[in-house]
Amino acid sequence: MGDELHVEVTSEAQTDTKLEVEERGHEAVVDEPEKFGGEDEGPNPLEYMFTGLAGCLNVTIHHIANQKDIEVEKLEINVTGDIDLEKFMIGEGGRAGFQDINVEIEIETDTDYETEASLIKEAEERCPVSDNLQHETDVSVSKK
Amino acid sequence: MGDELHVEVTSEAQTDTKLEVEERGHEAVVDEPEKFGGEDEGPNPLEYMFTGLAGCLNVTIHHIANQKDIEVEKLEINVTGDIDLEKFMIGEGGRAGFQDINVEIEIETDTDYETEASLIKEAEERCPVSDNLQHETDVSVSKK
Repeated sequence: MGDELHVEVTSEAQTDTKLEVEERGHEAVVDEPEKFGGEDEGPNPLEYMFTGLAGCLNVTIHHIANQKDIEVEKLEINVTGDIDLEKFMIGEGGRAGFQDINVEIEIETDTDYETEASLIKEAEERCPVSDNLQHETDVSVSKK
Repeated sequence: MGDELHVEVTSEAQTDTKLEVEERGHEAVVDEPEKFGGEDEGPNPLEYMFTGLAGCLNVTIHHIANQKDIEVEKLEINVTGDIDLEKFMIGEGGRAGFQDINVEIEIETDTDYETEASLIKEAEERCPVSDNLQHETDVSVSKK
């Protein structure tokens, strides 16, 4: 396995809120709940972002645990955040995104609390999604 | 509708790579392809992040178009990126995440090219996921 990975998703809008997405043969549907004008046919975009973060932390924690011969017996990851929608809604106000995102992890392993805390801290640094959220990333949006 | 939105996902690891996620009653599965030790039962974490970005741009473009009385007749959004996995794999090297993420948008509306380009640029600024990727966000990871 090389160290470089190409990631690609393609998608087409079905409604103002519903997007059908294809990723390597997997299909996903993004939508909004009715109160935001959608039909709630799938998780919303922010939930997809949080799911990516949780999924990335899961893979990274297990990967590092394997490298350190730690057995992960149980792992639960909850991601929460409160967002001010003013910028999205009317184009004014503070930043459009979350000011902060909170991840709470419940983990059971065959080692002690301190080692688990250290494992989680290292995973936070080595998880690509966590890195892309925590640090500036160039997002280039172009029109075909 | 208030301007503040609480977003939450909960999840539990099923394997080293597979995560079952719940978001407001919706269920999602994150997994890795076999070459990364998974069984490919769902999109990977990076694809979920890109899906969140595409979904957010879809909603934001339509929202702004409605505010400006522009009719969006067709919208396709493709997101791509190449990531160096060295930091994830061995804990050394450059940043863990994407250096840059590329979004290509094909749009058809009842207006002209320049108005469409301006619409996309404004959507990039008002889309929460785009904002969270482009700018530093505090991600607080804590152990229960």
